[in-house]
Amino acid sequence: MSVTTSATIASFGGKLLKLAHNSSVIGGEMKFNLYLPPQASNGGSKIPLLIYLSGLTCTGDNCSEKGFFQHGASKRGIAVLYPDTSPRGFGIKGEDDAYDFGSGAGFYVDATAEPWSKNYKMYSYITDELPKTVFSAFDQLDSSKVSITGHSMGGHGALSLYLKNPGKYKSVSAFAPISNPLKAPWGEKAFKGYFGEDDWQKKGAEHDSTELLKKWKGGDLDILIDVGTGDNFYKQGQLLPENFQAAAKEIGQEKGVHVRFQPDYDHSYYTMATFADDHIDHAAKYLFA
Amino acid sequence: MSVTTSATIASFGGKLLKLAHNSSVIGGEMKFNLYLPPQASNGGSKIPLLIYLSGLTCTGDNCSEKGFFQHGASKRGIAVLYPDTSPRGFGIKGEDDAYDFGSGAGFYVDATAEPWSKNYKMYSYITDELPKTVFSAFDQLDSSKVSITGHSMGGHGALSLYLKNPGKYKSVSAFAPISNPLKAPWGEKAFKGYFGEDDWQKKGAEHDSTELLKKWKGGDLDILIDVGTGDNFYKQGQLLPENFQAAAKEIGQEKGVHVRFQPDYDHSYYTMATFADDHIDHAAKYLFA
Repeated sequence: MSVTTSATIASFGGKLLKLAHNSSVIGGEMKFNLYLPPQASNGGSKIPLLIYLSGLTCTGDNCSEKGFFQHGASKRGIAVLYPDTSPRGFGIKGEDDAYDFGSGAGFYVDATAEPWSKNYKMYSYITDELPKTVFSAFDQLDSSKVSITGHSMGGHGALSLYLKNPGKYKSVSAFAPISNPLKAPWGEKAFKGYFGEDDWQKKGAEHDSTELLKKWKGGDLDILIDVGTGDNFYKQGQLLPENFQAAAKEIGQEKGVHVRFQPDYDHSYYTMATFADDHIDHAAKYLFA
Repeated sequence: MSVTTSATIASFGGKLLKLAHNSSVIGGEMKFNLYLPPQASNGGSKIPLLIYLSGLTCTGDNCSEKGFFQHGASKRGIAVLYPDTSPRGFGIKGEDDAYDFGSGAGFYVDATAEPWSKNYKMYSYITDELPKTVFSAFDQLDSSKVSITGHSMGGHGALSLYLKNPGKYKSVSAFAPISNPLKAPWGEKAFKGYFGEDDWQKKGAEHDSTELLKKWKGGDLDILIDVGTGDNFYKQGQLLPENFQAAAKEIGQEKGVHVRFQPDYDHSYYTMATFADDHIDHAAKYLFA
């Protein structure tokens, strides 16, 4: 569980750490970033953690550079964990052939189909091994106070991990999430590849936020989602937030799912930078409750 | 003077425009970005402009993605102009041979030595043609209210353009500026290349902020400079802010030059993101005076 540090970068009064560890779940080295706000160094109370799951093609670097989460996290005293989006460099045939499958596109599931099932276990990695590693290495963090958020594929990750694990995360929010991957081209491709042509719909349903929401028994929800109306992937039907809203209505939780359609905003980090403070505030409401 | 728009991106309630125009000073197309805050669209008072000059290797894109000037500019109602750092793609022999000379390294001077003198006229471009182009194309901007800031080579640009043109800019600030380029390896290389081996010291002195400050006659100064103590280029003697401070003392303006040595901060955009609001506030104090 040992963690190596390749860089310590001052940011908004705290520190952004560039880290790596040898993951036994993934079967090799995984990189990640951790932002420790100034409150992590003052010897006071343990501080809560927000996990930010990135989208297709990204590593933990993109959002830490362009997402502006450190601004609000510094003010509120929240650490932010930026994991990578897949195993990398295992030499699996086809791993680098497409932007939306393989490297950079782990989809936060545990693959069951060959040749992916050995290494592509991002669900277990994100829900279990990585946070354990982080809490073991950084004892100023409070392992009982964890929230989750993410963008696009990472928004799918955040919503599905939250809905699959009632009580595990104090809150969830998402930017432009792939909300119903079973019905979106990105999701179908990923689920077929990681679960196999025969099983993808059944196994995919266990990771599809809209399907999971229909079966939600965990109590009142308060989910914040931002989607830009200028987001080309929204227009192309990759995100389908309306399906998620419909599922919320179906279970009588429409007041707990707040989808904000932001006029003209696109799929980029410019959108996240603009609304990052709102998502930090949303998490803070529950992390400090 | 016509400007073409390749993208309009929603950001912090305003719009980031990706623009290009045919520059007669440079002799070809130049790209730049312009952030219009929400106040630019409400039909109220004309709004002021902050020019942000980028550092070596950068284009106008880097800071608009990672610098977070839009955060403060949106709140205060200030437009931000992000020019490019040099002519590009003119096929001049050697233009792409080094990161610190030629493309991405115009140094905000008008070159006099061959083969650079035809196109590398960044001083005239930034002080004259580009703002005229912008004010002509965007009449919601107030051409009488312009401030300037920048990073590294762009910090040198901001300070030297301010000091060479008393009254032209309402205020100046800088991040990690090359404050005394005549005595720094980057500056010596650039001045020798753009002015020639014989003339570089004499002509360089006309663009060296420390030398310009010694001859300043423009009244009381209020210059904000942030330098990180973890900045490797500061440690290597490329920035030399102490020389600028000494010059300020020499002319009795030490109270007007505020160099903040920020503990552990490095040369990156993480530093700018952290303190961008302070620089926006500094500009706002004079732009709205």
